[in-house]
Amino acid sequence: MLYEDLAGRLGAQIRRGLLRPGERLPSLRRLGRQEKVSIATAVEAYLRLEREGLVEARERSGYFVRARAVPPPQARLPRVQSRAPQTLRNPALLGVLDVLSREDLLPLHVTTPAAELLPGRALAAATARTLRRDPGLALAYGAPQGLLQLREQIARRYLGCGVEVDPAEVVITAGAMEAISLALRCVTRAGDVVLLETPTYYGILQAVAALGLRAIEVPSRGSAGIDAAAVRTALERHPVRAAVLVPNFNNPNGSLTGDDDKRAIVAACGERGVVVIEDDLYGELAYSGERPAPLRRYAGRARVITCSSWSKTLAPGLRVGWALAGDHVDDIVRAKCFSSVATASLPQRAIGEYFARHDFDRSLRRLRRELATNAQRWRDAIRRSWPDGTRVSEPAGGVSLWLELAGGVDGQALFEAAMAHGIGCLPGHLFSLRGDYRGHLRLGLGLAWNARVEDGLRELGRLAGRLA
Amino acid sequence: MLYEDLAGRLGAQIRRGLLRPGERLPSLRRLGRQEKVSIATAVEAYLRLEREGLVEARERSGYFVRARAVPPPQARLPRVQSRAPQTLRNPALLGVLDVLSREDLLPLHVTTPAAELLPGRALAAATARTLRRDPGLALAYGAPQGLLQLREQIARRYLGCGVEVDPAEVVITAGAMEAISLALRCVTRAGDVVLLETPTYYGILQAVAALGLRAIEVPSRGSAGIDAAAVRTALERHPVRAAVLVPNFNNPNGSLTGDDDKRAIVAACGERGVVVIEDDLYGELAYSGERPAPLRRYAGRARVITCSSWSKTLAPGLRVGWALAGDHVDDIVRAKCFSSVATASLPQRAIGEYFARHDFDRSLRRLRRELATNAQRWRDAIRRSWPDGTRVSEPAGGVSLWLELAGGVDGQALFEAAMAHGIGCLPGHLFSLRGDYRGHLRLGLGLAWNARVEDGLRELGRLAGRLA
Repeated sequence: MLYEDLAGRLGAQIRRGLLRPGERLPSLRRLGRQEKVSIATAVEAYLRLEREGLVEARERSGYFVRARAVPPPQARLPRVQSRAPQTLRNPALLGVLDVLSREDLLPLHVTTPAAELLPGRALAAATARTLRRDPGLALAYGAPQGLLQLREQIARRYLGCGVEVDPAEVVITAGAMEAISLALRCVTRAGDVVLLETPTYYGILQAVAALGLRAIEVPSRGSAGIDAAAVRTALERHPVRAAVLVPNFNNPNGSLTGDDDKRAIVAACGERGVVVIEDDLYGELAYSGERPAPLRRYAGRARVITCSSWSKTLAPGLRVGWALAGDHVDDIVRAKCFSSVATASLPQRAIGEYFARHDFDRSLRRLRRELATNAQRWRDAIRRSWPDGTRVSEPAGGVSLWLELAGGVDGQALFEAAMAHGIGCLPGHLFSLRGDYRGHLRLGLGLAWNARVEDGLRELGRLAGRLA
Repeated sequence: MLYEDLAGRLGAQIRRGLLRPGERLPSLRRLGRQEKVSIATAVEAYLRLEREGLVEARERSGYFVRARAVPPPQARLPRVQSRAPQTLRNPALLGVLDVLSREDLLPLHVTTPAAELLPGRALAAATARTLRRDPGLALAYGAPQGLLQLREQIARRYLGCGVEVDPAEVVITAGAMEAISLALRCVTRAGDVVLLETPTYYGILQAVAALGLRAIEVPSRGSAGIDAAAVRTALERHPVRAAVLVPNFNNPNGSLTGDDDKRAIVAACGERGVVVIEDDLYGELAYSGERPAPLRRYAGRARVITCSSWSKTLAPGLRVGWALAGDHVDDIVRAKCFSSVATASLPQRAIGEYFARHDFDRSLRRLRRELATNAQRWRDAIRRSWPDGTRVSEPAGGVSLWLELAGGVDGQALFEAAMAHGIGCLPGHLFSLRGDYRGHLRLGLGLAWNARVEDGLRELGRLAGRLA
């Protein structure tokens, strides 16, 4: 839409400080002439900016850039880095592939639930039924937006946690990572600043780097997730265009952001026209069974793009995920269409058939129970055999443990020693913009518990002790 | 400058009559050897002489002393635009999704072979066997680079057309489009100039636009594909970083680039360090059965990234393609890993199983025959019922027909009229950087022939007549 373009451009000028608080904006007539648009379009653009809180109308005087109460910056929130936004420069990120590609490891790093924890048999049966019933459709192209039946299924499921989703705004993707990557491509341009939490999933850091974005971090507090006040301060200090956040059981540290913070984060971003891309991959994996709300619950469809998939709950290898794209649906479908055309049909139809005939909730209950038990077993094993002083996260959900190593052990050194012993783990600095968390390690909870896992954890602890 | 010296000496010889009008000049390679200069310098020297009107290039024959000095430089090589590289600005590209998403159309635009033309039954059986044998593996994550068995299969197949491929350089992708998009992301940065042919597939144009690249075009000649001389001239005039070319049965116009041009294109790009991304999606679809060579055949692994898939020959909906990534393999695997993690496992294993037990070549022979027959039927139908003067491409392979409409009919107008009548087709300007080919239309050859298709083609012709 013309007026959206215009509002977008003016908004960007305001955010970048080119139009300053209190400054008078051109009259409707002048704006129309200047931009070669009708007066109606100019009105729409100003109204849009007014809704976004960027401009205000003053009676008989016209429109003005809103004068924000600028808070004393350094008095607040010492946790937000004062450094300038960073372009990613963590060389360790480039090495992560070696771990992911080696097949001879005891993979204590994997966050993907093992086959034993997932309903593989039921899904295989559903796939076979799909193929028998209609091999033609299962092997032919589907629409770029994805199978309607599946989009409806996704919308129904979100109703269960208080989020109204229109199937017409759902885009099926090749996993959550593609959804995040597409969303970023749609709402940012190279050089833009995005807000991330720290630590965060290395895949998000890589996607941000690949797009030439700059990033600014707010802390993800192990106990309480993202602090809305820190987000607000960061938005005041930096010209942030979008945020990529993992409020529910952040990978690596498992933190869960509280509902009040969620509400306030969404409000702060909304006021400044910052689009939030939410990675809700672990939202269904609360050990208590009580699903935490996604950020989307507290925002309109224009403001939060929720990304997730069935890769951690049903079928990792099928690569079926989604974006609740809201007002961005056309852009995201287009980006999808011209990067991978459409998500594979057979996996979509197989999952649709699985939902039609099988009990996902029962399977999910079992998975949650297993992950919760795993977290306990992993923590116990670490307490028993790792150096005193090792600190381990206590997640209430999700698929990872975040360790602070004792005795100043370097995570990269432990990672390398572990690899030499055929054990997979990930060094903490992978989860940082520029190599923080040298003393941390991430383990995954995906493996089914057995003696080999127990031995592996003991061996890792022994290596940590030797390095201390 | 070296080349100026050389041009000066050669020019003097021509003016003195030592080299005579019509006389053939040494080949670039020979001139280089003879004068102990690089081929690039030899090229520069000949170009200088060409601009001075002293020599002329003859297609596929080399350089000759010009019969008489004719200076007008703009008369030469009219096909290469002298304009500056363009950032994409064709608004029609944004509308293409409407066509692709409407399910109520008679889809005369589709280039994907219909289910009847593909071995769906065998593939479904292979998928079912895979699932029975190992549901766990089929539903679990695979490595980001893709299944080794499949990468070996791809390498074996290229041996058949004289290309040695190492399975270790093959990356499995979600179709050819993802391969092209990943390759572009790895070898370019926003603002770089890429060389394209015109007309070309709108997906390539969109991928280029999405990455913020600028593009310069060389013509794809309907009869003979890409002209190496035009490529060379474009490379001389613009700081090209990469080329995206479709030498084998270009979509839309079906053109096939000759082997000499292929060799010369690869050489010209190689000399200037320009990476060629080759879309070889239609290479297996020569109607004669004689598979044309990919550009990769004429280049080392550093210089050409060949992208293709089984979407037009085996299973569109499975979204399995590949890149022969050569020296770029690590970069492309990394980009893949952080945009969609890995290609879905089940489709890869299903295709692997299909190749192990079924006869792809037999199925392909049948498909080629059907497409060749379709091309003939489509052309006959158009000749019978479209306005006199309509010109239709005569492809020797591939899945599309390119029409030049008679009587000045606008492709967009015909497209809109067709949509209103429930018929899908694509307006020519979709295949252009900035809206050329207004008088063209693209049809696909994917549908199985029947009375509805015949009626649809007649109806389209009637609409074209009405608009004329």
